[in-house]
Amino acid sequence: MLPPLRLGIAGLGTVGVGVVKIIRQKANLLADRTGRPIVITAISARTRDKDRGVPLTDYAWEDDPVALAKRDDIDVFVELMGGSDGPAKAATETALANGKDVVTANKALLALHGQALAEAAESADQVIRFEAAVAGGIPVVKALTEGLAGNDITRVMGVMNGTCNYILTRMQSAGLAYDEVFEEANQLGYLEADPNLDVGGIDAGHKLALLSAIAFGTKVDFKGVELEGIQRITIDDINQAADMGYRIKLLGVAQMTGRGLEQRMSPCLVPDSSPLGQLEGGTNMVVLEGDQVGQIVLRGAGAGEGPTASAVMSDIIDIARGIRVPTFGKPAKGLAQATSAKASASAPYYLRFQLLDKPGALAKIAASLGQAGISIDRMRQYSHEADAAPVLIVTHKTTRDALEAALAAFAETNVLAAEPVAIRIEAV
Amino acid sequence: MLPPLRLGIAGLGTVGVGVVKIIRQKANLLADRTGRPIVITAISARTRDKDRGVPLTDYAWEDDPVALAKRDDIDVFVELMGGSDGPAKAATETALANGKDVVTANKALLALHGQALAEAAESADQVIRFEAAVAGGIPVVKALTEGLAGNDITRVMGVMNGTCNYILTRMQSAGLAYDEVFEEANQLGYLEADPNLDVGGIDAGHKLALLSAIAFGTKVDFKGVELEGIQRITIDDINQAADMGYRIKLLGVAQMTGRGLEQRMSPCLVPDSSPLGQLEGGTNMVVLEGDQVGQIVLRGAGAGEGPTASAVMSDIIDIARGIRVPTFGKPAKGLAQATSAKASASAPYYLRFQLLDKPGALAKIAASLGQAGISIDRMRQYSHEADAAPVLIVTHKTTRDALEAALAAFAETNVLAAEPVAIRIEAV
Repeated sequence: MLPPLRLGIAGLGTVGVGVVKIIRQKANLLADRTGRPIVITAISARTRDKDRGVPLTDYAWEDDPVALAKRDDIDVFVELMGGSDGPAKAATETALANGKDVVTANKALLALHGQALAEAAESADQVIRFEAAVAGGIPVVKALTEGLAGNDITRVMGVMNGTCNYILTRMQSAGLAYDEVFEEANQLGYLEADPNLDVGGIDAGHKLALLSAIAFGTKVDFKGVELEGIQRITIDDINQAADMGYRIKLLGVAQMTGRGLEQRMSPCLVPDSSPLGQLEGGTNMVVLEGDQVGQIVLRGAGAGEGPTASAVMSDIIDIARGIRVPTFGKPAKGLAQATSAKASASAPYYLRFQLLDKPGALAKIAASLGQAGISIDRMRQYSHEADAAPVLIVTHKTTRDALEAALAAFAETNVLAAEPVAIRIEAV
Repeated sequence: MLPPLRLGIAGLGTVGVGVVKIIRQKANLLADRTGRPIVITAISARTRDKDRGVPLTDYAWEDDPVALAKRDDIDVFVELMGGSDGPAKAATETALANGKDVVTANKALLALHGQALAEAAESADQVIRFEAAVAGGIPVVKALTEGLAGNDITRVMGVMNGTCNYILTRMQSAGLAYDEVFEEANQLGYLEADPNLDVGGIDAGHKLALLSAIAFGTKVDFKGVELEGIQRITIDDINQAADMGYRIKLLGVAQMTGRGLEQRMSPCLVPDSSPLGQLEGGTNMVVLEGDQVGQIVLRGAGAGEGPTASAVMSDIIDIARGIRVPTFGKPAKGLAQATSAKASASAPYYLRFQLLDKPGALAKIAASLGQAGISIDRMRQYSHEADAAPVLIVTHKTTRDALEAALAAFAETNVLAAEPVAIRIEAV
């Protein structure tokens, strides 16, 4: 049997404690599967004297994660602190500089500093693994980096923020307003310390940017992700989309086009009977498309102690087994600088607006669409509320430029009571 | 850059040709991702002078795959011939004995001889990889062996034979009898040379046995799979299941219980709106359940040139990258002998029978169920056809022993016009 693989774990929140439990409870299984013992040497967290429900006295303690990252008696630095900068970044850099491999669940860190860290790892002949950073327990980083490595990847899509999906499905099932469910989610502890990371789509955007880098062999380009959160989604949007057979999901899409890398994370409509439409609560789904394999769909828990710890363990086990793949699937220095392009692929759109009670009002809207070259698939007008009538339109496929031209023309008609809502429809 | 990885490919059917195309067309991509060129040195197939749509003159030719497996100028023997014995087995054994790694798509070979081959590979310090043997393009072997390696796997399920799924979905959509669709599938070339491998559930059973070995750390035990094919499924079964909100799928389930390893591959009813119920045509779906990760669902193409070649390439790329994991996830000599147990988990059942037009007939059936401790969830009786009335019953959860007792009691009642049909219902 090989010598033990020695871990230093920084961060003892839900995920860190989950990892400690697995290593304690499954020592034999892990040794069987990797051919060597996996042991924890030292740990670090913000507070030492707190009952975390698992014995920690066997392990050396470090107050400072940077000190942990330097210890001679660890082989792998397991970074489960979170935060794109500060101690997580400093400790990760220190670990690499001191000849440690790194396993992390930190999407923000990698989305913002992934290129520099991957280059640092390569120079030091170390690896950085981050299965737990994307889609919780779903082994999607491995599927993309290794399982589909014989493909040119054509598109990556996914619902990758369980909190947003919880809020959207809960709004629909309970008929509650966004603010009410947001408050519920907050009470339940589902939201990040800065909730905008979740509901603003930032966390999901980080994940999409990481998958894009692997898929397209480009440097992580989080700034290139067109971001739109779910804060503007109202219960009316949800109910009226449901009326037309759709559900609203915060969906990420990344694809390489002739004009560059398109990445967007935004609310979309999906058919309610589709696999994405049926995704409930905190479940994540990722769709990977390759030129050889066609479409692969992966579904599973996107967060939580067990699923996320499972992903961290798979990286640790890989390292124990001697699996060493470059951070983003090819050498970091060979990753191309992506030219980010505004997402432009044609799609049908869902339009919702309040039409003023004036003769010829609908004709003006219809004319604006026609002049932009957009044809109508389905339309529904409801009874007037006060002096305006809610109207829903599902268009045939159109470009985003055409849609924007139509929306600009709408503004000139003076027949709308408020800003129209336009949401892209994706069929998955 | 490392020296090239040199392949010998035996078998130039659809999958073999697909692999040759990828290696020719994606040389740069593959070298980028693995850090070394991947090249084909020599090939072998049954007939040499046949236009396969791809230039093959660059490669040395061997008439005999065993001779190919011995060549000094190959590092990896890629076995794409098929067949559980004969040349595929002989060549694979020769390759391992001659210090070659093996990549294979051959589920029959591994289901019957996997233990001996894995031990031979280990003794020779070589690896056998078989991603393409299970569920086509879906990277399920990798997901289970590596991605979920931090879990005790609790259950594996899947629809893993695209031909059966094609037949069952086509029967339903076209309202055709089994024999008619079987003949169609035959004309389309969807069936194996021995069609019983497909419709008898054997091919899918091979795949389930391979996943079980990885999941539960046991020696491959294909004989322990309770097999039932789809040949007895009638269009009436399909239509009347649809009436009750179900679809029929050839579903594999493997789980370790206190009594031993349960493996079965049999037609099951699944809710028509469930992910499994919505699986159309040749698509495969595999469900992996682990104590940490919960449920992971993977969906993708189960066959075809591109998807299967994608899976073969992932194994080749792993070898090029230096990834060396034991065949079934832990050393073959450490795999336990499974005690195979008759599948016993409780489930609801769907019963269909022809009830004779006699007073008290239904009461006798109901009494038989009641005496076996089985309660009825839903029942439907249709108008009489001749002197018997079709009856459908969906039971509440019951054990298989209770079900068999009830069926035995049915036989004593003399009120059924024919053998009743009983199909297990699975909720996935």
